[in-house]
Amino acid sequence: MEQQTNTANSHNQPSPSSWPTKAWLLLSDVRAQSPLIQCITNFVSMDLMANTLLSAGASPAMLHSLEELHDFTPHCRALCVNVGTLTPSWLPSMKTAAQLCSQLGTPWVLDPVAASASGFRLKACMELVELKPAVIRGNGSEIIALSMAFTQPGKVSTVKGTDSIHESVDAVGAAKLLAKSSGAIVAVSGATDIVTDGNQVVGAHNGVALMQKITATGCSVTALIAAFVAVDKLHALDATVSALAVFGVAGELGMRNAKGPASLRMHLIDALHGLDEAALQSHVNITSLS
Amino acid sequence: MEQQTNTANSHNQPSPSSWPTKAWLLLSDVRAQSPLIQCITNFVSMDLMANTLLSAGASPAMLHSLEELHDFTPHCRALCVNVGTLTPSWLPSMKTAAQLCSQLGTPWVLDPVAASASGFRLKACMELVELKPAVIRGNGSEIIALSMAFTQPGKVSTVKGTDSIHESVDAVGAAKLLAKSSGAIVAVSGATDIVTDGNQVVGAHNGVALMQKITATGCSVTALIAAFVAVDKLHALDATVSALAVFGVAGELGMRNAKGPASLRMHLIDALHGLDEAALQSHVNITSLS
Amino acid sequence: MEQQTNTANSHNQPSPSSWPTKAWLLLSDVRAQSPLIQCITNFVSMDLMANTLLSAGASPAMLHSLEELHDFTPHCRALCVNVGTLTPSWLPSMKTAAQLCSQLGTPWVLDPVAASASGFRLKACMELVELKPAVIRGNGSEIIALSMAFTQPGKVSTVKGTDSIHESVDAVGAAKLLAKSSGAIVAVSGATDIVTDGNQVVGAHNGVALMQKITATGCSVTALIAAFVAVDKLHALDATVSALAVFGVAGELGMRNAKGPASLRMHLIDALHGLDEAALQSHVNITSLS
Repeated sequence: MEQQTNTANSHNQPSPSSWPTKAWLLLSDVRAQSPLIQCITNFVSMDLMANTLLSAGASPAMLHSLEELHDFTPHCRALCVNVGTLTPSWLPSMKTAAQLCSQLGTPWVLDPVAASASGFRLKACMELVELKPAVIRGNGSEIIALSMAFTQPGKVSTVKGTDSIHESVDAVGAAKLLAKSSGAIVAVSGATDIVTDGNQVVGAHNGVALMQKITATGCSVTALIAAFVAVDKLHALDATVSALAVFGVAGELGMRNAKGPASLRMHLIDALHGLDEAALQSHVNITSLS
Repeated sequence: MEQQTNTANSHNQPSPSSWPTKAWLLLSDVRAQSPLIQCITNFVSMDLMANTLLSAGASPAMLHSLEELHDFTPHCRALCVNVGTLTPSWLPSMKTAAQLCSQLGTPWVLDPVAASASGFRLKACMELVELKPAVIRGNGSEIIALSMAFTQPGKVSTVKGTDSIHESVDAVGAAKLLAKSSGAIVAVSGATDIVTDGNQVVGAHNGVALMQKITATGCSVTALIAAFVAVDKLHALDATVSALAVFGVAGELGMRNAKGPASLRMHLIDALHGLDEAALQSHVNITSLS
Repeated sequence: MEQQTNTANSHNQPSPSSWPTKAWLLLSDVRAQSPLIQCITNFVSMDLMANTLLSAGASPAMLHSLEELHDFTPHCRALCVNVGTLTPSWLPSMKTAAQLCSQLGTPWVLDPVAASASGFRLKACMELVELKPAVIRGNGSEIIALSMAFTQPGKVSTVKGTDSIHESVDAVGAAKLLAKSSGAIVAVSGATDIVTDGNQVVGAHNGVALMQKITATGCSVTALIAAFVAVDKLHALDATVSALAVFGVAGELGMRNAKGPASLRMHLIDALHGLDEAALQSHVNITSLS
């Protein structure tokens, strides 16, 4: 049985047969530990992100006031920073919380939404990357823009909004460069979700296309990554791939009853809450791409 | 028939047999009067809170700008203040609106979300309590923290996020102390919702556990309390218990068709909109605990 | 067959038989072009507004930072400005984005939520109207207040919150005056949605009453108008009427499976995503009222 595969050496990449087990164990740990996850995120995503974390068994906290970070952030098991509705007044909170986490050894995850929407935003994303996120997750366009900002800073041009114009597979090279230059695990969402530490590249092939028609699904899976990394921070790549696959499986199961994007959103969250080991064993589809 | 019980002396605690009638009459008044309820609340809760109020028949208004309060707040029948995503820039609006209400005799309700998450937040909650809310509703941990802040100010320590680590029944003593020192009705949500004026203690035993896996259900029931108090401000304890029971009954009815937290959220709001007297007569479960 | 009616002269008002075709062609254009729509909107509406635009095939972007507008707004095909949770810190962004659009010939749409809730808000709405929106959409009370502010400035008094106390048909005169004085197409939502350029008046008779019990449906249809105007900016009246009818048809189809406001919200978005030409041909109900 695949679920009996030894995963003790999980700091190395699991074999394909052990990925479903890995994902199940991490989800079980999130449910058992209910890690407190601080989210400094955009206004659009707060509702779905909080519900995603709750449904997965984590404990979300949407606190962003600079006055509270020194008291509160140290109690968190992970932090999710998302720049979707960034303004100058929010950036100091994001940076201070990220710095606190880096100092305390608490993992934090960056979602560089629409990184190239403006010079202000791209610069903010670069400053955040300097603060050592454990994971960066974006779509193809976001990761390409952010990677170029570090490696070919003169060449970044403003691209279209929050929807990607690049396939995730087109961003593998950019993702590897960004991972190497930042030290972060880099994840690129798409038809196949790509995850890399700069050397190995892993693909999660779960999810359904209609999830892109629901606002904040990308933001929410970033928060789920934070919850998974919170319970296994020494293996951030495995946790990231697992979270992407688990969210994708919830989408696949939700799609069975969905009649459009709004019912998919509901069924996805229900499915995430109800996921059992059998569902993950039969659906998790993670492969090595490097 | 229980629904024919005399409730004329509703300034005293209704007998158990008359609680369903009380709850039904208050819900009917909300539907008939459609009271305008101002909500100065956190970003996560705005959508569900507005939909909760609309489904119950009230008219929500999410206005929080300091520049608007003197023109707008006097037209409201009640105010709901929630500190979930508190920042220094929002606090003056909360305090000004609360003061206006107190001066005008308009009831206002405080939701001290994660009261002990930071020193800044606890101090803000205490300043708001000084402005004489008609009702304070929180979970066990929040009420205990706030009560201790008034009675044993040196002993409050930061606790976990927005999810309670205390059962509501463990907070009865703290709730009574807070009610006595503040003059407010104090409600503690939990498996049993506890409501006290400092002397009598009433328990509402409705609701389902899965409601805790939906973000902003606590925030939303606080807003529903505001709507119920708006139509019967002289009997804030009865209105508070009734609102908690009505929301809980909607959750119980919603649970019949729910397959997880997201579908429960939908069915709960649908059920709240469709509640009739028969459903409340058969489901409202309120008892005296003192 | 009605769908074969010539719509080449769509700068004139289509004949009743061609409205369904008009609406279908515009929806098809939105789906094909996926126009980038910037939304500077209130906190309550962001989730449903983004999902409405995604379901219709557009690409929403909730960016509001003043620092980003010069880089980002020129890439947008239309802008939606909504004052629902207005504060002084957001107003400069709204005005700057509106000005940029006016300079660039990009259409922008104003939703004057609760226009008369305060003197501050009414003044802000008037300043925004001066910046030449292509379309203004509100409920009866909002349009009456805004129209009076331009034509009888001393007579505006504060009215009830965000829910209208006027039927749309009572606002026809006010809408025509506002259209003439502002140069904008003016739409008034209600049992019949009224649209006027100051001379001709068109009515869209789609939708169901229960949509008023879902928060942000009005805000969301304003954003949908922006998406429709984005793909046919020379015929803003036709695009506005069509968007209102399409959203209403989605509501009618959604109502078939709804059991309350929350399930209607879900089914409406699903229906909007799945709309086909046959549904629009059989349901779109637009007539001339002038």
